[in-house]
Amino acid sequence: MREAAGTRTATVMEAIRTRLASRALSAGDRLPSIRGFAGAMGVSPSTVVEAYDRLAAEGLIRARQGSGFYVANLAPPLALAEVGPRLDREIDPFWVSRQSLDADAETAKPGCGWLPADWMPNAALRRAMRRLARADDKVLSDYGATRGLTALRRLLARQFAGEGLDVGPDRILLTGSGTQAIDLVCRFLLRPGDTVMVDDPCYFNFRALLRAHQASVVGVPWTPGGPDIASFAELAAAHRPRLYITNSALHNPTGATPSAQVAHRVLNLAAEHDMAIVEDDIFADFEPEPSPRLAALDGLSRVIRIGSFSKTLSASVRCGYIAARGDWIEALIDLQVATSFGGASPVAAGLVHSALSDGSYRKHLEALRRRLARARRDMAGRLEALGVSPWLMPRGGFYLWCGLPEGCDAAAAARSALADDVVLAPGDVFSVSQTASGFMRFNVAQMGDPHVFTVLERSLRAAKACG
Amino acid sequence: MREAAGTRTATVMEAIRTRLASRALSAGDRLPSIRGFAGAMGVSPSTVVEAYDRLAAEGLIRARQGSGFYVANLAPPLALAEVGPRLDREIDPFWVSRQSLDADAETAKPGCGWLPADWMPNAALRRAMRRLARADDKVLSDYGATRGLTALRRLLARQFAGEGLDVGPDRILLTGSGTQAIDLVCRFLLRPGDTVMVDDPCYFNFRALLRAHQASVVGVPWTPGGPDIASFAELAAAHRPRLYITNSALHNPTGATPSAQVAHRVLNLAAEHDMAIVEDDIFADFEPEPSPRLAALDGLSRVIRIGSFSKTLSASVRCGYIAARGDWIEALIDLQVATSFGGASPVAAGLVHSALSDGSYRKHLEALRRRLARARRDMAGRLEALGVSPWLMPRGGFYLWCGLPEGCDAAAAARSALADDVVLAPGDVFSVSQTASGFMRFNVAQMGDPHVFTVLERSLRAAKACG
Repeated sequence: MREAAGTRTATVMEAIRTRLASRALSAGDRLPSIRGFAGAMGVSPSTVVEAYDRLAAEGLIRARQGSGFYVANLAPPLALAEVGPRLDREIDPFWVSRQSLDADAETAKPGCGWLPADWMPNAALRRAMRRLARADDKVLSDYGATRGLTALRRLLARQFAGEGLDVGPDRILLTGSGTQAIDLVCRFLLRPGDTVMVDDPCYFNFRALLRAHQASVVGVPWTPGGPDIASFAELAAAHRPRLYITNSALHNPTGATPSAQVAHRVLNLAAEHDMAIVEDDIFADFEPEPSPRLAALDGLSRVIRIGSFSKTLSASVRCGYIAARGDWIEALIDLQVATSFGGASPVAAGLVHSALSDGSYRKHLEALRRRLARARRDMAGRLEALGVSPWLMPRGGFYLWCGLPEGCDAAAAARSALADDVVLAPGDVFSVSQTASGFMRFNVAQMGDPHVFTVLERSLRAAKACG
Repeated sequence: MREAAGTRTATVMEAIRTRLASRALSAGDRLPSIRGFAGAMGVSPSTVVEAYDRLAAEGLIRARQGSGFYVANLAPPLALAEVGPRLDREIDPFWVSRQSLDADAETAKPGCGWLPADWMPNAALRRAMRRLARADDKVLSDYGATRGLTALRRLLARQFAGEGLDVGPDRILLTGSGTQAIDLVCRFLLRPGDTVMVDDPCYFNFRALLRAHQASVVGVPWTPGGPDIASFAELAAAHRPRLYITNSALHNPTGATPSAQVAHRVLNLAAEHDMAIVEDDIFADFEPEPSPRLAALDGLSRVIRIGSFSKTLSASVRCGYIAARGDWIEALIDLQVATSFGGASPVAAGLVHSALSDGSYRKHLEALRRRLARARRDMAGRLEALGVSPWLMPRGGFYLWCGLPEGCDAAAAARSALADDVVLAPGDVFSVSQTASGFMRFNVAQMGDPHVFTVLERSLRAAKACG
């Protein structure tokens, strides 16, 4: 009996916690009245009083003399990992990043989104660092210009021109990272409650980022040829999204590339419904040959191109970029000054420019593409042997988006693998509709260690048993 | 007559632009009806039609068949520099940062917030860079752990312990910069419309940052002994601010230090009104001896300590930190992963740690304090000679907050000086109440060039004439 009462109290407390996490209740808001909430929850008023008192003891709410209970100002208001439906808490968009970033050296990370350190052009980086150690005092000590290192923006402008995108260095803004570039654009274009369209599946951190902006997210079904155009049109009409965020070159997680026709239709629909588009080009350098790019077709009128150097040069040297309309760049500069007092560190931008200008970089990229093509083939074969089959064979990059054997739950497999020091990327972290529990994203460059396949096989069996 | 009509149209267009900038009108909102707005503006409906058509031609608004005019989604929604009252646009919190950051090498910057490059420990930085060029591949290529380089967090924890603040490395989070640290905290604690208290005057970028968060800002009058406690109590009671942002060690722009008594009272008022406090310690290393610190008194229960290495080590190597409650750090990590995919670059954190551990760093700080003490004395004397008198003589740092000669408008002087390639910092950019037009902040380390005083004298005369 006492236990039952305890359970009822816990249920009421959990109900309030959920409202706090979802911001249905925010700092300073009055909590539901004792009697009213008791009725709503089907418990006795004394149970609600007990629950409120315990939450007050935890500092989440405060009693105000004679006027009931209020949400405390210091109640963590934006615990991102807690926001959203219960199912979503089970498989959180932060799960893979937190596990991979904080993994120890022994842990294998086929679920992570980067190449092993020894696949990167470290010799060129070391040369760049020694060159920088001889640079002018100002380069080492001063804040840089608000747009970021001119030499690097010029280099990017030349590269874009080669891809048919004519944009002066003044319309390029360097940022602290590719993610920060998208974040800055979201801060500029979005207000809480605005709707944003993403691909389903999409890079899990798009979902995390959009939570931070309290945006409402709609997912457009993704096909081997890009977003499903019929659904895109329906969703755009129904939800009037302000923004569409996508990877057009090599899509994360599937590695698919939209056809020229699809790209063209996406742009027309965006124009018809007055949407902006963020084209995240972060995997572009892995393409065997450039694919039709939204930014190039559109000429940066409503498309914003962002990217970084984390995948092919270094994730430690943080530097990203935004290419966009001139008036938007001006506003984004103010926003970046206000929120970071500048973008990419001049030291970081200097290292990137120096390494990209290093004669060895192009050779590095070509070797990397060949090495990854082999790895995709080999790992696809070894995965097939476990009944894990790629949804498609990508033209480039290091991802394989794979269907698991019938009845295998990816989340269960990932949890079991983590116990054996292997970080996997279960499908639903990528899925707005939470319909990818039978899929998993594999990073073929992080599967060299045979331990990975031993653990994978074991986890799949475990997941099937429990599923 | 036609000109008059043109003027009236322009007036209507400007009125709409202001509503867009201030977000009184936002994406998708319907514009006021032709007839209604004509009445409100005292013009003919045809004038409003003309104005709306021109704004539509500019792409700011769109006509919808039969249902009037609507704000276009792509109308820049957050042009920060445009937000706020007209007066504020005249003297914008971005004015000093944009002018100083983008100034060419010839421009003198007594208005800027950093030391000349040749005052910084560049030799130590170069050594650090050569050491890093020999570091492990992972350091050069990998994303770091979510909290940032452990060695640097341990070093900070030891330093804090020395100042009477006991906090484990796990409660320290490295960020991309000091500004980014405050921004992250604001994202965690604030929602649009929340009230934040700052000092009046305060660092101008606090005002810019809080605009980006669409916070409503109240300024507490600042005295030579810290915030005016009576006003602090009144404002806290009247506006129930969620957060107070301050520099306690050496206040920017005045260089004043709160007394222990004031610090203690501020904490009690914050507790009484359930406010969080951000203590921006960025100038702490310039203190001759440590002053009473809010974070140490409070033990990081409601105080969040932030800082960076931009003022004493390098502004080019971007790295800041947050020390706060453990549960807050966890939420801030998620937020930083979502919005930057990590904080300080491992390369940057490595450089900072290596340079701070360099035997020469302590000597550099001591020499820097002596050099600045001399510079404060000398420049104060030379400013007095122009009738420019320091509000107080700071214990440390490089700022002098000075009253201008009677009838001199700081903004006018700053604009005139800019024409002569000298960037000044007019008082009102620091003032929420816009009551500092007779003040200016000087950076004594940036006034070595005699040209500065020639231009300053000329600008003051010009400002007086025009004032």
